[in-house]
Amino acid sequence: MVETSARHVHVTAEDLAVLFGEGFELSVKKMLSQPGQFATNERVTVVGPKGEMPGVSILGPERPSTQVELSLTDARKIGVVAPIRESGDIKGSGACKLVGPKGELEISEGVIVAKRHIHFTPDQAKEANVENGEIVSVKITSAERTAILGDVVVRVNPSYDAAMHIDTDESNACGCSGVVYGEIVK
Amino acid sequence: MVETSARHVHVTAEDLAVLFGEGFELSVKKMLSQPGQFATNERVTVVGPKGEMPGVSILGPERPSTQVELSLTDARKIGVVAPIRESGDIKGSGACKLVGPKGELEISEGVIVAKRHIHFTPDQAKEANVENGEIVSVKITSAERTAILGDVVVRVNPSYDAAMHIDTDESNACGCSGVVYGEIVK
Repeated sequence: MVETSARHVHVTAEDLAVLFGEGFELSVKKMLSQPGQFATNERVTVVGPKGEMPGVSILGPERPSTQVELSLTDARKIGVVAPIRESGDIKGSGACKLVGPKGELEISEGVIVAKRHIHFTPDQAKEANVENGEIVSVKITSAERTAILGDVVVRVNPSYDAAMHIDTDESNACGCSGVVYGEIVK
Repeated sequence: MVETSARHVHVTAEDLAVLFGEGFELSVKKMLSQPGQFATNERVTVVGPKGEMPGVSILGPERPSTQVELSLTDARKIGVVAPIRESGDIKGSGACKLVGPKGELEISEGVIVAKRHIHFTPDQAKEANVENGEIVSVKITSAERTAILGDVVVRVNPSYDAAMHIDTDESNACGCSGVVYGEIVK
């Protein structure tokens, strides 16, 4: 299953308190495919040198680092230079300002464009004959924009469940709509 | 050579007069790869049910039909349902309002997302061993987002010159920056 990740933000408990006030807790809007991960009702504005993106969803739960995941279209629009990175690999990545209802904060790094990837449990990876960290290609078939995306990193963890994640640029480039499946082609 | 087409508008002489005033002439900002085609200094705002895109460039010269080419990201943002089409094939395509400095107009069709394509002269097509209308795949290599785009239509005309055109979603999905070359893989 191929899922499209729209722009979103992960926050630390500390940064959440700055943006939404002391003692604030994220509220679950919808559980996501990855166990324990959820979309929240909370939104912030992401501000860059050239513009801002209002209404960007926070995904929960809180994380050890605050991280903003944009598409390259988004990043260019607000003037942030964001590298293509795996989630969590934010050293030296893009800077921006985050504005919440109760406060704002500048982050000196944390803005990335997510590297396309597949989540698997160890059993699922074995079944698919791939290993953690392996780079594969995935064929995504659609009526008018079929494509084979290369440079897809396989991430294996018992806490995951099978799903490929691409961003909105990639999803649009593949003409994805509705439920989409991809096929690993090595 | 792979070129990225940002959102743009083609206008009829009649619609140009509505938007910019009677007797107005498009001014050349930069010649484009296709002979006789040029970016102009003129910009309009494209308005949809959910938002607007200011500063969208007009490409010259005037054409027999007014046509707005957006990315799927753009179309979704302003709430226009735009089909993926070849340039010129606008029957039943998306509607929008165009706003220029001297006037505005509603178009009932003409908003499309361009189908990815390659321009060739007949000689170039022969050399590449492809024919007008043929659907091919093109491998675009980049540091972190190599991909093979399928559903690329070959368009052959003596007035063309060799170039592949993709939109900003596709360009971002392939990690394109600077001068980019693609390889036809049938």
